[in-house]
Amino acid sequence: MGMLASALSSFNKKSTLLQMLTSLAKTVGRIPASWGRHAWSIGSEDPRRAVHALKAGTALTLVSLLYILEPFFQGIGKNAMWAVMTVVVVLEFTAGATICKGLNRGLGTVLAGCLALLIELVAAGTGKVLRAFIVGASVFIVGFAATYTRFFPAIKKSYDYGVLIFLLTFNLITVSSYRQQDVVSLTRDRLSTIAIGCAICLFMSLLVLPNWSGEDLHSSTVGKFQGLATSIEACVNEYFRDQDEGDDVLGKQEARASIQIGYRAVLDSKSSDETLAHYASWEPRHSMHCYSYPWQKYVKLGSVLRHFAYTVAALHGCLESEVQTPPSVRSLFRGPCTRVAREVAKVLQELAASIKHHRRCAPDVLSDHLHEALQDLNSAIRSQPRLFLGSKHACAANKRVLLMELNSGSGKLSASRAALRSFKTDATALSETRNARSDQPPPPSDRSERSGGLLRPTLSKIAITSLEFSEALPFAAFASLLVEMVVRLELVIEEVKNLERVANFRELATGHNHLIVDLGSKEKTRNSNAAALHPVSAAAE
Amino acid sequence: MGMLASALSSFNKKSTLLQMLTSLAKTVGRIPASWGRHAWSIGSEDPRRAVHALKAGTALTLVSLLYILEPFFQGIGKNAMWAVMTVVVVLEFTAGATICKGLNRGLGTVLAGCLALLIELVAAGTGKVLRAFIVGASVFIVGFAATYTRFFPAIKKSYDYGVLIFLLTFNLITVSSYRQQDVVSLTRDRLSTIAIGCAICLFMSLLVLPNWSGEDLHSSTVGKFQGLATSIEACVNEYFRDQDEGDDVLGKQEARASIQIGYRAVLDSKSSDETLAHYASWEPRHSMHCYSYPWQKYVKLGSVLRHFAYTVAALHGCLESEVQTPPSVRSLFRGPCTRVAREVAKVLQELAASIKHHRRCAPDVLSDHLHEALQDLNSAIRSQPRLFLGSKHACAANKRVLLMELNSGSGKLSASRAALRSFKTDATALSETRNARSDQPPPPSDRSERSGGLLRPTLSKIAITSLEFSEALPFAAFASLLVEMVVRLELVIEEVKNLERVANFRELATGHNHLIVDLGSKEKTRNSNAAALHPVSAAAE
Repeated sequence: MGMLASALSSFNKKSTLLQMLTSLAKTVGRIPASWGRHAWSIGSEDPRRAVHALKAGTALTLVSLLYILEPFFQGIGKNAMWAVMTVVVVLEFTAGATICKGLNRGLGTVLAGCLALLIELVAAGTGKVLRAFIVGASVFIVGFAATYTRFFPAIKKSYDYGVLIFLLTFNLITVSSYRQQDVVSLTRDRLSTIAIGCAICLFMSLLVLPNWSGEDLHSSTVGKFQGLATSIEACVNEYFRDQDEGDDVLGKQEARASIQIGYRAVLDSKSSDETLAHYASWEPRHSMHCYSYPWQKYVKLGSVLRHFAYTVAALHGCLESEVQTPPSVRSLFRGPCTRVAREVAKVLQELAASIKHHRRCAPDVLSDHLHEALQDLNSAIRSQPRLFLGSKHACAANKRVLLMELNSGSGKLSASRAALRSFKTDATALSETRNARSDQPPPPSDRSERSGGLLRPTLSKIAITSLEFSEALPFAAFASLLVEMVVRLELVIEEVKNLERVANFRELATGHNHLIVDLGSKEKTRNSNAAALHPVSAAAE
Repeated sequence: MGMLASALSSFNKKSTLLQMLTSLAKTVGRIPASWGRHAWSIGSEDPRRAVHALKAGTALTLVSLLYILEPFFQGIGKNAMWAVMTVVVVLEFTAGATICKGLNRGLGTVLAGCLALLIELVAAGTGKVLRAFIVGASVFIVGFAATYTRFFPAIKKSYDYGVLIFLLTFNLITVSSYRQQDVVSLTRDRLSTIAIGCAICLFMSLLVLPNWSGEDLHSSTVGKFQGLATSIEACVNEYFRDQDEGDDVLGKQEARASIQIGYRAVLDSKSSDETLAHYASWEPRHSMHCYSYPWQKYVKLGSVLRHFAYTVAALHGCLESEVQTPPSVRSLFRGPCTRVAREVAKVLQELAASIKHHRRCAPDVLSDHLHEALQDLNSAIRSQPRLFLGSKHACAANKRVLLMELNSGSGKLSASRAALRSFKTDATALSETRNARSDQPPPPSDRSERSGGLLRPTLSKIAITSLEFSEALPFAAFASLLVEMVVRLELVIEEVKNLERVANFRELATGHNHLIVDLGSKEKTRNSNAAALHPVSAAAE
């Protein structure tokens, strides 16, 4: 019995161990699978990434042949390795970046070679000690000067890598010259191998399935317009939704989180815009039909869009603020506000479409709708004089309404008044909470919890004070921001028109109401050029 | 006479030529001088730049000695050049960046060396053709895989340079192995020379007048608080200035331009913050007194500050908007609004000072002042019920006032009413302008002029429509944004407290009203540690 028991227990142990091992093996086995899924998701997110990796592999194999194949090796020799290194370092994702790096590398190498040969001329025929001194001193001086130059904003922006390569090549040649006699052939080798490497990179990135920075910039600009349109519509809808659809907290949080995706992308786009425009300015593709494609106009448009997006962010702030106008009051303005937002979104979508297809837009029609929507909002606000007074008109209306109310006490506004009362009750409840906890600081757990979500309400004494303000104030801010947004939209339209003019977009009415046939003579020639060339670029997209 | 005249004219010609040459020479001579001034200004802007350039020169000279001095050359040989290259590439401005690059380079080289030797083991003893195939295939596969890996966000963020060096070294060794027998010694040489180069770089950037990314991040965070404080005060002062100081257009434009410097710096700080925090996380300096200094908290604080700065941007938008509440109405709220702005600025300055000196702040005292200022604003708004109605209180007051007005028609408010009337006149004048030009599009010259300044008013029909809105609306937005700003300031304070807690700032009252003596036992030990170590860091600043 004892043996059986021990055997059983050992079997149990073994089986437990086996189970553990199996599960461990499964876990370990799952790691490559999860990595694989991760890798796959990165590729499927943007298939150009996989293509670029394939291109890099091919370029490296090609350049390695220089070293491996006998005839090439005889010609170039061991320094073929520099060509390999050049390919590793220069080949970038977009064509513009590759050209920028390649030219920088070439220019830096040439300049460094010239300077190094000059110093070689000076140092030629001197004694060993003097030569060492000359080499050391020139390395120090050039090292200092080149490093200092990299702080110049103009150089840092476009030639940072060139200066680095200049320093690298200069040191390589100068220091080598101390022990090697044939510096000229060394310089020639370095130049030619780097040229071969750059040529392979340029071939791969310009001619084999190229990725253009300019196209990225173009489509990211289009995406920004679309994102803003989505954000604005979602934000305004959310602002007026509350009273309809109960307390679906999770769905609400999700909807609110989705609002900021659109405008956040615009607000955070500065550095990526500038990089893309910088690389795009090196790309030859668009230089065919005008002297230089106005990529800087896209950067300018991006900054105007950011200026516009600040208003969207502020609008979102109204939504997230804990100082709120009661839903019943808000609902009075639901129609006109949503209409303004819809019209703004429509204009943005229209601008996005026109930029996307390189055609001129006709925003006048849309502006008219927007104009009507604004007037709607205007009259809606004026028709509620109890909330917004000021203009003579509204004043008079207000007096009338108040007199009526004093006389009868009934009418359309009594409902909203009841709402105001119920809101006050809420505020009182919150004040009680505040009184209960205003003296001691919040516990640490609460604090850390709060720091998780950026937009979660803080209910401290400062925040609560604001609840005592007139509750028309928050809605006034909301409406005012809507108006301000329309004003800034005007600036965006101006900037888009500017871009369209400079970039020679096709003059084509969208077919809403009318067709623009009247073209100026100067415009006509410019646009016939553009039309002749655009089918190519449209096909390449 | 003829000869004299021709001689004179030739003299005149010569002197003109001479003058031209002299002026040309002067111009050319002035170029180096102006370059020199430019270079000097860059150095005097931040003297650490010149120091860094000197350090780079010294490091390069030191590493060149490896090649020049006989004993070193005997030990290392021609591959000493790799050490020179390492110094050129790895030495960066801040210590964190140098460490990051150095470690990446080291790690990449080691891994590549291992993999290359493994493949060498496999390929050893095979024929020439098979070997060429193995080399080519491994170059392709590793090239593809490494390039693809660089798209992984986690790798891109921290190890991008490491993967590049991995690829470089792998190709160098694998391709060389085709013609060179002694690959092991090649690998060893590459490893040791890169190690020497990295060691020199680390010595130079960590021990000789180091520049810390962490300190840059710290001081830029302090600067952001100060910039925001300046912006807010300037913005609010400007909003209420108009009626006092006539039409000093130039001074006004300058003052307005200065407003945006402060908050723009905050809004545009995302990528530089993240880079600095990334490099700072590699720096060893702060790891002495806590496990790891919470640099990511600075990034978090930066994002909360950006959230706060959106409100400042919106406030600035109110100032620049062409829909304006008339100055006479605004001036009614001048006192309380400026007070709120001053208190907000004071809190920001206090937070800046506490972060700067690594001590905990006591914002409760300041919050109280802010609270009072808000209540001031609240009662100011409530005392003008003609502008903001809504709460029961204000409603009642309004009824009273209106009844009074109906009876007598005189009182404090008639002045503001007159102002409203005069404003209406302005609006009418603008409407006339609009009617005159609403039909034809603006001329191109006007258009291009307009596109110059981002914040210049556009007076198109859309913008004008909004002038028909109640003019209390813009001020309501302004006041509401002030309140919202205070609410968000709360979030900023929370985040600063969070940072102070995690980073173990000294518990020290600012001496305003009281001194915090009561330290918890755990806090005490932590803070005595911090106090023991902080004098060093304070001295190093």
